[in-house]
Amino acid sequence: MVKVADRLQGQQQSPLRAMTIRCQELGAINLAQGLSQVPPPPALLAEGTRDFEHLGHSYSAPEGLPGFREAVADKLKRHSGLSVDPATQVVATVGATGALMATLTALLDAGDGVLLFEPFYSYHLAALRMLQLSPEPVRLTGPGFETTEAALRAAITDKTRAMILCTPNNPTGRRLTAGELAAVSAVAEEYDLLVITDEVYADIYHGVTPHLAPASVGDLGDRTVTIASLGKTFSIPGWRVGYACGPPELMSRIRLAADALVVCAPVPLQELGIRALRLGDDYYQELRQMYERKRRILADGFMAAGLTPNTPEGSYYLYVDCSPMPVATGTEAAELLLERSLVGTVAGEAFYLDQPDRPYVRVCFSLPDEVLTEAADRIGRAGLTHG
Amino acid sequence: MVKVADRLQGQQQSPLRAMTIRCQELGAINLAQGLSQVPPPPALLAEGTRDFEHLGHSYSAPEGLPGFREAVADKLKRHSGLSVDPATQVVATVGATGALMATLTALLDAGDGVLLFEPFYSYHLAALRMLQLSPEPVRLTGPGFETTEAALRAAITDKTRAMILCTPNNPTGRRLTAGELAAVSAVAEEYDLLVITDEVYADIYHGVTPHLAPASVGDLGDRTVTIASLGKTFSIPGWRVGYACGPPELMSRIRLAADALVVCAPVPLQELGIRALRLGDDYYQELRQMYERKRRILADGFMAAGLTPNTPEGSYYLYVDCSPMPVATGTEAAELLLERSLVGTVAGEAFYLDQPDRPYVRVCFSLPDEVLTEAADRIGRAGLTHG
Repeated sequence: MVKVADRLQGQQQSPLRAMTIRCQELGAINLAQGLSQVPPPPALLAEGTRDFEHLGHSYSAPEGLPGFREAVADKLKRHSGLSVDPATQVVATVGATGALMATLTALLDAGDGVLLFEPFYSYHLAALRMLQLSPEPVRLTGPGFETTEAALRAAITDKTRAMILCTPNNPTGRRLTAGELAAVSAVAEEYDLLVITDEVYADIYHGVTPHLAPASVGDLGDRTVTIASLGKTFSIPGWRVGYACGPPELMSRIRLAADALVVCAPVPLQELGIRALRLGDDYYQELRQMYERKRRILADGFMAAGLTPNTPEGSYYLYVDCSPMPVATGTEAAELLLERSLVGTVAGEAFYLDQPDRPYVRVCFSLPDEVLTEAADRIGRAGLTHG
Repeated sequence: MVKVADRLQGQQQSPLRAMTIRCQELGAINLAQGLSQVPPPPALLAEGTRDFEHLGHSYSAPEGLPGFREAVADKLKRHSGLSVDPATQVVATVGATGALMATLTALLDAGDGVLLFEPFYSYHLAALRMLQLSPEPVRLTGPGFETTEAALRAAITDKTRAMILCTPNNPTGRRLTAGELAAVSAVAEEYDLLVITDEVYADIYHGVTPHLAPASVGDLGDRTVTIASLGKTFSIPGWRVGYACGPPELMSRIRLAADALVVCAPVPLQELGIRALRLGDDYYQELRQMYERKRRILADGFMAAGLTPNTPEGSYYLYVDCSPMPVATGTEAAELLLERSLVGTVAGEAFYLDQPDRPYVRVCFSLPDEVLTEAADRIGRAGLTHG
């Protein structure tokens, strides 16, 4: 019968989703998938409730509503120090995933090599595979997960055309430093690489140092497509509203690709997204305080269990080295966590092409405090480090 | 600098969108793009307004909310005579365009040939080009725009792996007959072709004979992916909610592709979509009566101008043969219509790989009655057939 595309060979249901299904079956607390259960800002929902019928319900232009693009440009100016022209440098997308797909489709061809820092967000790999692009891993190892110009150069092949950054990083919570971005810039310049940067966790940083956008460093903006979404910042991942920004000559191509892929991002949600993007500084401060509190609740559980969770600089994940547990791999660690504590986590293996250097699991803390408290309690008293 | 993908070479801003921009500049009435300006059902908007804050705002599974898939299965049973299992045979998508992209990505590889009835909906061609699939046209000529088994066979090459149907058709308004679908079935069976059918206008048929879904004919359901959306039926094209249905072994692949492309369809709008899909028979009767009235208003204008518009069997377009006008091509006809009547139309050329056999224009009648009346008046008294 009808065949399956070559590009889909080897693509499987993600291990994150498989764990979600197991958690549902077992009644376990699911910290595996980034399924935010934090409620959206009440003021935003109230506006939706008041105005839904008066929102736009027909198409927008493929690049999105003018007001949405203006609000994105304002936000990038305010929070990332980027200056983008809303008319020519912003395209509204179906979330950050839609933005990545439109960017890769518009600017790369099958067989092109793309540098991917490992561990990576698994949808980045899935996107490359779907488009038959060649992932070229740059391995980062714990606990620092740093990169250097030498490591970048060593990964370059004659097929390399682009690199994907993710800062703050999913899964490690690391943020790229000015020094690392200078190395990125030097290598990208020398090899004329496209730089794609996924910054969906830009507003969820921990500590006092604000987000550093790669496109704001040196000349990187001339070759960088910055991708973000409203999903994490406003706890509305289901709205599927994101955006890509970059040099006009790249964005005009990305707009064509976005048009062919999805016509436009959902219009009533773009319109409500404008209001979300106009929320003031208080909102962002409270957001970060909330996530700092949630991080501590969950980290305390792992400490009580005799593990030493990392301290992420951003994102809503802990990336936990499970070496003190009687396991050899992240997969075994996730299994033991599920068995002994009825808590679902995702094994580090999901974020590598090959094997991780240690048995890592990633856990999401974008959940109600009481759920995190219960999960931390279960983890703390499960005897995870016992043989 | 950074290159543009080969697959985007030759992709341009669609002529429909170019005409929309010209209409905005000239203050002309835009009947070119299918930019529905018919308001959504008030009851649906009222539910959105009442319940927005209580809808889901996090992700759904990549295949969509269970309730959405059940509502789709119920609707297909009720209106198309199709039996699909909501658990394994339905995937919610970002509109019909997202459904087509997920289907093509999941089931075909670069270089594969896809039969496309000409004139075709221009996004179908754009999707094929984006994925480097090879369009293989099957030319239909006016006034009947019919196809035969012989015509289909003549178009087959050794690369042919699939065909795209569109019924009711955009732009011609034609619906495929049982006889034509028997021919499709015979050829698809013999050459083991995937059949993709775009049925976004299924609910907007004219006359008394209900929609005939290709997947309901003979064994076609075993190899057919049926694509539709809520955009046309409920006048909510901006919501970007559609679906694909078909055999479980194909849908499991399409689900993987949809996940990688967009994660999921917009969740609060899937949820409101469930309510739209539950609207009763009265809604559909009134919808068809409304479009029949709108069709007549616009057709009368062309008749007053000395032209003979077609009588579409479905869709909200007229496809008008402008041979009585002093023009050689659809492009010239659209230009004359814009100049003399300040009405924007789309030249038939947009729907062909090569040249159409006659100077056609397509006009959309999914607009308020008063706008259509004004457009018809302008068209009727513009002296279009004068040399």
